[in-house]
Amino acid sequence: MDWQAEITSAQARVAPHIRRTPVATVHAFGLPYKVELKLEHLQHTGSFKARGAFNTLLSQKVPQAGLVAASGGNHGAAVAYAGSQLGHKARIYVPEMAGPAKISLIEGLSADLQVVKGAYANALNAAKAYEVETGAMQIHAYDAPGTVAGQGTCMAEWETQGLEADTVLIAVGGGGLIAGAMAWLGGRRKVVAVEPETCNALHAARIAGKPLDVDVSGVAANALGARRIGDICFDIAKQQNIETVLVSDKAISRAQHALWKEMRQLVEPAGAAALAALISSSYQPAENERVAVLICGGNIAPDPFQA
Amino acid sequence: MDWQAEITSAQARVAPHIRRTPVATVHAFGLPYKVELKLEHLQHTGSFKARGAFNTLLSQKVPQAGLVAASGGNHGAAVAYAGSQLGHKARIYVPEMAGPAKISLIEGLSADLQVVKGAYANALNAAKAYEVETGAMQIHAYDAPGTVAGQGTCMAEWETQGLEADTVLIAVGGGGLIAGAMAWLGGRRKVVAVEPETCNALHAARIAGKPLDVDVSGVAANALGARRIGDICFDIAKQQNIETVLVSDKAISRAQHALWKEMRQLVEPAGAAALAALISSSYQPAENERVAVLICGGNIAPDPFQA
Repeated sequence: MDWQAEITSAQARVAPHIRRTPVATVHAFGLPYKVELKLEHLQHTGSFKARGAFNTLLSQKVPQAGLVAASGGNHGAAVAYAGSQLGHKARIYVPEMAGPAKISLIEGLSADLQVVKGAYANALNAAKAYEVETGAMQIHAYDAPGTVAGQGTCMAEWETQGLEADTVLIAVGGGGLIAGAMAWLGGRRKVVAVEPETCNALHAARIAGKPLDVDVSGVAANALGARRIGDICFDIAKQQNIETVLVSDKAISRAQHALWKEMRQLVEPAGAAALAALISSSYQPAENERVAVLICGGNIAPDPFQA
Repeated sequence: MDWQAEITSAQARVAPHIRRTPVATVHAFGLPYKVELKLEHLQHTGSFKARGAFNTLLSQKVPQAGLVAASGGNHGAAVAYAGSQLGHKARIYVPEMAGPAKISLIEGLSADLQVVKGAYANALNAAKAYEVETGAMQIHAYDAPGTVAGQGTCMAEWETQGLEADTVLIAVGGGGLIAGAMAWLGGRRKVVAVEPETCNALHAARIAGKPLDVDVSGVAANALGARRIGDICFDIAKQQNIETVLVSDKAISRAQHALWKEMRQLVEPAGAAALAALISSSYQPAENERVAVLICGGNIAPDPFQA
């Protein structure tokens, strides 16, 4: 696949709908070097997921039956938002266990919200049944070319904003965001994959030599807790032989605190995971290596205005 | 005073110490036009105040006895931070009524913190006594040329970041930030002063034809509650004949909610006041008038990590 062309097309498609999120360069967090940040949690619905959702909807024929997704999190919110903006009805199945903050986020987006008792698998089964019954379209959260190309616009945009870094750290769940970044960069900058110790689908797959199921838990699990890394991400990561690092839940929480204390940015654990790799020295830049961190999600629970 | 020259000098002085805060252009908040934002609450210590503090300390001789300030808020935090960064000892008198969030903010900045029983006046008296006794230097929070020139660097910086707006809305307390902006712009763009209905020192002074004491209260009082507008601000506002608008506490709270809901920015009431003027239509742009809003402070209470 010609990713450069795909992502360039995606940029033109999504530009009228997504937010060009701000960037900042800071000396902070007790680090002896400066860090470039992209504040992608300021994106519509609070995460990068809107990019992939819009790109998919604008590059494929959407059936009369509209959209369906199973998600208690950022992907569900993005599909609901993009559907509503483009005039497609969207049914979002949310597992009860997603909790009130994320459920309320989706609720506010004029989707047809269905709260399903139990865990994510129940919501997914309900969504699949709805898809079969109605012909509605499912948008994959991370492992589809349209999704990856959409997420790739984030890195493409960052480069137009003057990114200088040699190395970019990106948190990984199912791998849609980092796959888009790797695809766009094509090795021109070093990409480091950051995963929680307890949600390490890419790390485990790199060791095993192929994607495999992992157990997921911990503070970032509702955003980074993909049980299996996407094939697209795995293939590009293998081809580019990128480095993966793991961070503890404690390091993630520390990074969340640091982002609030030093920059007044209140983000969800997943949004702070990549920064945690620097603060905890899980990733240590070489001398003069310029580093950048993608802050990818801000949908913290509890919502500070609902707590 | 040649404000252009003063602010240009201030820029060079403060550049190594302050943060170049990000900007963003958004279609949001239910407004039918786009808004340019400067996210100055990402500044060190969570508000623009660091600019004036650094400029003052770097352009005047600081006595051996160091610095003293009376403040339960953003100015005290900025003086404590700038003093600590530049190696001056700083004693900050904080009124007990400032509350745990702001007290803890200053506490974390290696200042010599003194919590004074009662209201602000008691802290101010203690600070004055310390100044007389030790020869320590007080930095005025808003009505001194060094402070105003420092705050003016915020608007100067914004123009280098591609500001397009015809009109910039800025919240006013004692008027240091808006004075710096007006002084820098010299009428090249329209400046609109936004004050809470219950902290309207500039508005009242414009009606009376001179600065006068006003009662202050309401959600933004601990940041915008100056009892009297600064003379520097008043004089420039009169000379440029700028427009002042008032916003209700309810409108400010609504703008705080909107900033969180649509951009994941959690700011204090003062930081949302200028945006409130647009959302509440207290200020209605003309057709094709391009508007910008300065988000000036993020030190919300309670601190989300202490609540």
